[in-house]
Amino acid sequence: MTAAAYDRLKARFARIALLDESQAMLHWDAAAVMPAGGGAARGEQLATLAGLSHELLTAPEMAGDLAEAGAQSGAGAEVGAGGEWDGANLALMHTAHRRATALPTALVEASARAASACESIWRTARARADFGLVAPALKEVVRLQRETALALADATGLSPYDALMEGYQRGIGAAAVEPIFTAYETFLAEALPRAEALQAARPAPVPLAGPFPVAAQQVLCREMAERVGLDFTHARLDESTHPFCGGTPTDVRITTRYNTASVAQALLGVLHETGHALYERGLPAAHARQPVGEAAGMAAHESQSLIIEMQACRSDAFLGFIGPRLHAAFGGDAAAFAPANLAGLWRRVERGFIRVDADELTYPAHVILRFRLERALIGGELEVEGLPAAWNEGFARLLGLTPPDDACGCLQDIHWYDGGFGYFPSYTLGAMAAAQLMRAARAAVPGLDVALGQGNFVPLREWLRLNVHGQGSRLGFQDLLRAATGKPLDPADFTAHLQGRYLTA
Amino acid sequence: MTAAAYDRLKARFARIALLDESQAMLHWDAAAVMPAGGGAARGEQLATLAGLSHELLTAPEMAGDLAEAGAQSGAGAEVGAGGEWDGANLALMHTAHRRATALPTALVEASARAASACESIWRTARARADFGLVAPALKEVVRLQRETALALADATGLSPYDALMEGYQRGIGAAAVEPIFTAYETFLAEALPRAEALQAARPAPVPLAGPFPVAAQQVLCREMAERVGLDFTHARLDESTHPFCGGTPTDVRITTRYNTASVAQALLGVLHETGHALYERGLPAAHARQPVGEAAGMAAHESQSLIIEMQACRSDAFLGFIGPRLHAAFGGDAAAFAPANLAGLWRRVERGFIRVDADELTYPAHVILRFRLERALIGGELEVEGLPAAWNEGFARLLGLTPPDDACGCLQDIHWYDGGFGYFPSYTLGAMAAAQLMRAARAAVPGLDVALGQGNFVPLREWLRLNVHGQGSRLGFQDLLRAATGKPLDPADFTAHLQGRYLTA
Repeated sequence: MTAAAYDRLKARFARIALLDESQAMLHWDAAAVMPAGGGAARGEQLATLAGLSHELLTAPEMAGDLAEAGAQSGAGAEVGAGGEWDGANLALMHTAHRRATALPTALVEASARAASACESIWRTARARADFGLVAPALKEVVRLQRETALALADATGLSPYDALMEGYQRGIGAAAVEPIFTAYETFLAEALPRAEALQAARPAPVPLAGPFPVAAQQVLCREMAERVGLDFTHARLDESTHPFCGGTPTDVRITTRYNTASVAQALLGVLHETGHALYERGLPAAHARQPVGEAAGMAAHESQSLIIEMQACRSDAFLGFIGPRLHAAFGGDAAAFAPANLAGLWRRVERGFIRVDADELTYPAHVILRFRLERALIGGELEVEGLPAAWNEGFARLLGLTPPDDACGCLQDIHWYDGGFGYFPSYTLGAMAAAQLMRAARAAVPGLDVALGQGNFVPLREWLRLNVHGQGSRLGFQDLLRAATGKPLDPADFTAHLQGRYLTA
Repeated sequence: MTAAAYDRLKARFARIALLDESQAMLHWDAAAVMPAGGGAARGEQLATLAGLSHELLTAPEMAGDLAEAGAQSGAGAEVGAGGEWDGANLALMHTAHRRATALPTALVEASARAASACESIWRTARARADFGLVAPALKEVVRLQRETALALADATGLSPYDALMEGYQRGIGAAAVEPIFTAYETFLAEALPRAEALQAARPAPVPLAGPFPVAAQQVLCREMAERVGLDFTHARLDESTHPFCGGTPTDVRITTRYNTASVAQALLGVLHETGHALYERGLPAAHARQPVGEAAGMAAHESQSLIIEMQACRSDAFLGFIGPRLHAAFGGDAAAFAPANLAGLWRRVERGFIRVDADELTYPAHVILRFRLERALIGGELEVEGLPAAWNEGFARLLGLTPPDDACGCLQDIHWYDGGFGYFPSYTLGAMAAAQLMRAARAAVPGLDVALGQGNFVPLREWLRLNVHGQGSRLGFQDLLRAATGKPLDPADFTAHLQGRYLTA
């Protein structure tokens, strides 16, 4: 009776997915339209939905059906004609259940409380650049994260840090990431000064003359999102303080932030979020609301935002397309909108302290630092008291600068203070995967860049839909890249991309 | 251990309320901002949340705690210091549980499916004015509604029709409604021709000259909603096809529809929804998410929208305030904005076929007809086949007109086709209660109309907060009126109001 048990499991997971969809919409509402006074009630609503979702996942009947449905991986033939997809789905069900039941309720609740308290103190600490203020709260978060990592490691057979990472990206662990990051550090030590020298030798780009009225930016952003492939009968574009992509696959919600002094912020931000949105829209509808129908993880997701924003939309070809459109929308000196000038503005390399402001070449250094530090924190080789010194030392080694204070250093990102350990590598794994996928797409689809130069994203989008979006969670990160590009993550494609863009006179 | 059981019940009902709040936000989203393509998923999300809410209410532990908590009404002393409120809360918990468990799951599901199918056919039938098209589907809805009514009657001890009515408004039944409606029919037969004659004898009002730009209407509507008392740190005003008030008490969402040819539609609509919103905002926070902390029912709710829209905002005093504001916002001939002219425009009596377009005097006739017909349908004295003839005959008797087709007759409202039997009386009970409450407020608060003439709603709002909003669901409809006005529903206050407004030369 494994088929009947598997059918019941599918119904159970669909119900959980619908609770999660409801949470996604309420999260969007809170960020994009909710009046401030609704915040307290929203927190309660979200906690209730999350609690019910967890209860459904850990209910005794779930364990019974999982046991009855049998094999935990690859056993497609056992559960029906879906074959490989069903096998992968069942394996993902087992994993989700194993992770959820691995953690005692008391630990889950203590972690949520500690993260919430710490995050709140962190806001003040960052504003005052006072790490000491938040250190005790962060110590508690780290203590509970270590406990969580051990419990998950016990249940999954992974190392403690990998067990946390798996919560964000399945199919790649620290052992694979470490040599890749070390090699990048070596590459960067030589490449960064060279890129800076080449940049300094070129004439300074002419800034685009604003102001850029919000209404005109909105029209342009929407038009570009549509051109990239977002269908607004299944999507919205709104404003929020921190841009994001949320919602559900058939109702995806992206946000941006408009600045009348700069059109790049909103436009490139919308293109980035559109990349995320296309992934959600392209997930396999036949497996909707099943684990195997979800996106393959955060690194995979970031590869999709960056292949649109960084690979496609900052390419020479697309800059040639967007320049005249920008000029038509905002006027001013036509020379400023020439592709070479836009490249000078939008592909500028500059060492800085803040990750979210970093360029494509130096961004991985920010991530490498955080990966090493969070791994050491979880492993117990680093304690919270030592974090600021370790940060500053590591940052100086990677980028040759010393943060003037902790607000520009180890206090800048919310992740750790909110209990999010194991996420950071996804940013750079995504950037590298984007370069690798773009290279494979170019090889597979002749005329890809000619099309981008005409503002035509159909060839790229079709290739991504087939090779990434439509694959759902069938494959982990490395296997997804293997299937799409013929090899696991190969940072040489990323450095070759950087070579062409930043290291060629 | 009744106190411990009661505490557990409060936690259980709070959880249900949070699921219901989540649904309320998702309903608002669907009506106000959702892209069309999100509709199918939204239906699934809402069904899942409703299903979980029902499961929590009918769970075996709930029955156990209710049995342990004891007395079903008035036994405040048993459950703690909350006294009367706790007693009422526990009684409402018993009622909610009794109603939820009275209906077999198969009947609930069959009803939902039948209503959904019928409502969809009804849209076509109404567009084609073809009752025959939807009659079979409506027959099935009625059959299931009869079965539902019998099951609820069995569980509650009410008559079948009253058992349905109780789902919308507790504390008044058909036996009380019938003589009130019969008396109104008699009153109207004499009053309507007289009001028409008086109106015909006055010079025709000058129409307000448009167009009325949407942006200016939005500013005015928001300003007036704030003036009436809506705090936009806990509220939003948006657009939707069918205006409504939704959301939750700390995050209330009202909508309207703008028409550049008429400012009255959006403005009076917003004032109406603001009345609903103030009720939600004023519910007792100490009993939030408990049955006793909810609004007292749909008739009570309608009394709050109508006391703002009809009683306060169409009063001579307020017309004197709003006229100059309208003139300042839209310009044109100042004479058109004089109070007497606005009264001629906004208090016009006109027999018509459509309920939602009806004036204050004839509106009850539309409701009386529906009340009689739906009662006969549930009671089995009328069958679906006989509905159009019964409608047309009743309508002619009440308003002296015969609908040219069923689209202007028994097909015009969604309620029955969507399975909503027992709701209609709420509209007129609310209108009558609004007049009664306004009279009591005027007697209790000197200078109420002087304040309205200055656009000052504080005195009225404070009185409503104390006597209606802050009472939550502690009292049923008649008891709420008794406590606030010293008597149960007394239609003489409504007819006196109509007398003064429409039947005085």
